[in-house]
Amino acid sequence: MTVRVLEGEGTERLEAISDGVFAIVLTLLVLQFEVPTVPSAQADSQLPSLLLELQPLLFSYLLSFFTVGLYWVIHQNLFQQIERHDRILLYLNLLFLLTISFLPFPTELIGTYSTRLTWGLYATNFALVGLTMTATWWYAARRDFTPEEITPHHARLISLRGLIVPAVFLLSMAVSLVSLELAYWAPLLIVPLQVWWVRVYGSLQDEL
Amino acid sequence: MTVRVLEGEGTERLEAISDGVFAIVLTLLVLQFEVPTVPSAQADSQLPSLLLELQPLLFSYLLSFFTVGLYWVIHQNLFQQIERHDRILLYLNLLFLLTISFLPFPTELIGTYSTRLTWGLYATNFALVGLTMTATWWYAARRDFTPEEITPHHARLISLRGLIVPAVFLLSMAVSLVSLELAYWAPLLIVPLQVWWVRVYGSLQDEL
Amino acid sequence: MTVRVLEGEGTERLEAISDGVFAIVLTLLVLQFEVPTVPSAQADSQLPSLLLELQPLLFSYLLSFFTVGLYWVIHQNLFQQIERHDRILLYLNLLFLLTISFLPFPTELIGTYSTRLTWGLYATNFALVGLTMTATWWYAARRDFTPEEITPHHARLISLRGLIVPAVFLLSMAVSLVSLELAYWAPLLIVPLQVWWVRVYGSLQDEL
Amino acid sequence: MTVRVLEGEGTERLEAISDGVFAIVLTLLVLQFEVPTVPSAQADSQLPSLLLELQPLLFSYLLSFFTVGLYWVIHQNLFQQIERHDRILLYLNLLFLLTISFLPFPTELIGTYSTRLTWGLYATNFALVGLTMTATWWYAARRDFTPEEITPHHARLISLRGLIVPAVFLLSMAVSLVSLELAYWAPLLIVPLQVWWVRVYGSLQDEL
Repeated sequence: MTVRVLEGEGTERLEAISDGVFAIVLTLLVLQFEVPTVPSAQADSQLPSLLLELQPLLFSYLLSFFTVGLYWVIHQNLFQQIERHDRILLYLNLLFLLTISFLPFPTELIGTYSTRLTWGLYATNFALVGLTMTATWWYAARRDFTPEEITPHHARLISLRGLIVPAVFLLSMAVSLVSLELAYWAPLLIVPLQVWWVRVYGSLQDEL
Repeated sequence: MTVRVLEGEGTERLEAISDGVFAIVLTLLVLQFEVPTVPSAQADSQLPSLLLELQPLLFSYLLSFFTVGLYWVIHQNLFQQIERHDRILLYLNLLFLLTISFLPFPTELIGTYSTRLTWGLYATNFALVGLTMTATWWYAARRDFTPEEITPHHARLISLRGLIVPAVFLLSMAVSLVSLELAYWAPLLIVPLQVWWVRVYGSLQDEL
Repeated sequence: MTVRVLEGEGTERLEAISDGVFAIVLTLLVLQFEVPTVPSAQADSQLPSLLLELQPLLFSYLLSFFTVGLYWVIHQNLFQQIERHDRILLYLNLLFLLTISFLPFPTELIGTYSTRLTWGLYATNFALVGLTMTATWWYAARRDFTPEEITPHHARLISLRGLIVPAVFLLSMAVSLVSLELAYWAPLLIVPLQVWWVRVYGSLQDEL
Repeated sequence: MTVRVLEGEGTERLEAISDGVFAIVLTLLVLQFEVPTVPSAQADSQLPSLLLELQPLLFSYLLSFFTVGLYWVIHQNLFQQIERHDRILLYLNLLFLLTISFLPFPTELIGTYSTRLTWGLYATNFALVGLTMTATWWYAARRDFTPEEITPHHARLISLRGLIVPAVFLLSMAVSLVSLELAYWAPLLIVPLQVWWVRVYGSLQDEL
């Protein structure tokens, strides 16, 4: 019983605070859009071009929204498989939440200035999101906080999924040295890689 | 068991993150109001007129609050009928949350500048809110994530409800070409249409 | 079963979105404090007086925090007694959340400008918080969404509690016509009135 | 039954609003970072040094994030041991949430101006966080809201943990009178003290 002060069954509150952080980050991202200031009389003529200038911010907004959303999907999947926790798991998850909650700053930065440095910071942040989440899962699997059905092979495959996003963003940083424009498109690779992963994982299920 | 990595019973965390986003958007809307800057000595004489100038912001605030609130009611109703999820449902719901979480920007925009363009953006955003939510429900019904009692006829009727708001806002965009003033009142149509829908749905229940 | 689209058992998500709005409002209130701008070299000498100037904001911050906190306590108490919901209850609760989520604006206003008008707006907002919450409870009691143990006499007594804050703030508006300084102290009346209410309610329990 | 209006079983909503406040504070901290303003053409040359100037803000961000995170871990541990509540517990927890939700302001202050005064305010805030949380636990233990397994000795030991952070921050205020630089490093003491506490508490378990 008293052991529960240090570790325990269930991960309800860990999931609750994580959902809170996810929800707030998803919603705070919109605060980077500022209503342009023009004289009321000229709103009709000047607003269209000023709103068009927000395009880079919209790009970074959508990219961050969907990548955070993807991590929420992964997070909720992983924690369906984690049945116990100890202090270290709580701190690893906090480290993950740190990387998620920092995202609005590099998102606004890359939406405002398009340079190798700002893309590097943005990509680094997302790489850390993926690495801390994978570390969290890897620790939980190693400590046997997962149900019996999760074999070591499953656990490794699930770890692999968490590394797709870091790998793609690190690749994009390398690409940005050649062409910054091209680097922006690299995150699209996440989609086929996720689909491929789902197929591999699904076929493993069929074998069993 | 391991199938749970890709799909699963229950929608608790999906509802939790959605409630988080709803709650934050409902509360962030107030941030568009800025305390006016006047010399302290003249606060008594100048504040009243400056506060009156906030009226258009108050209008957009109330309209957004109640429309988001209405969608929260619909969302919580729908998900009482959705008993399972898969990845696609999670992503469709994220798409819906994207449209909800973007709302504070067009809300402040229409509250600051009253033009056909700003109303068009605002109405488009709300139309997308309704369309993505309907797509989410339509997918869940089609994949049979709903309980047996929900017949195809019920499911279609419930889809219809989600289209009331998009239809009204698209209508208001058409109206705005003739009269922008009139377009602002179009959303009031949502109230009788919702009441009418509830009556139709209720009478269907009685027939059974 | 299908009736659940229009009304249903439980109030979990209603409580979830309410807790979300409460938590966000409690936390957003701090955003009204802005770090003063002084040259770094003069921070030592100029900061103390600039921070002291934040006192009125601190006063409005604390008053809003505790009044919202009080309403959270009342809200969680009331909803322990509400076992079912229908659409109207959801909308009444949304109306209540509207009044709660608007609070940061009048809070910053009264913390910035101390006039009869700003106090009037602030007090009106809190009066509406209390009135909409009482309306929500009154409706739930009238529709028999409460457990059997809640007699009409209990329900009336519980309604009365929700009216303490509106009564005190309306009184403070009257007081402000005579002395604005005095009006600021009126909310302190909430404490003895709440204590008195608890005693009355407790003695009712003993009688049964 | 009706007693539930004043006190009751469970602490679900108390935990829900606390998790909400924790999640929002953890996420709002990032808002202190502002994207620097430079002409687009000079972003490449000027951004690096402007971003480096954000280092003090990053320091205060990380320190606040991890200290709040530590308190979340403690809070979730404590409330696994609290099985009932009354009004006073709710108000003590609100007082704790007040100290948590105020943190973004002194965090930005110390990140902007490095003076004895700003460090004093920051350290005082964290000391109050620890003291109000300990008061909450102490009250729950004294009112026997805890399970039987928690002996008075356990309860005292758990109270002690909550006092580590206040003690360290009060020490750092004393240190700041001698050297402000050194004071910034004092919070690192929290780590070994927490580890030490866990060991002491664990050995108590073994004795039983």
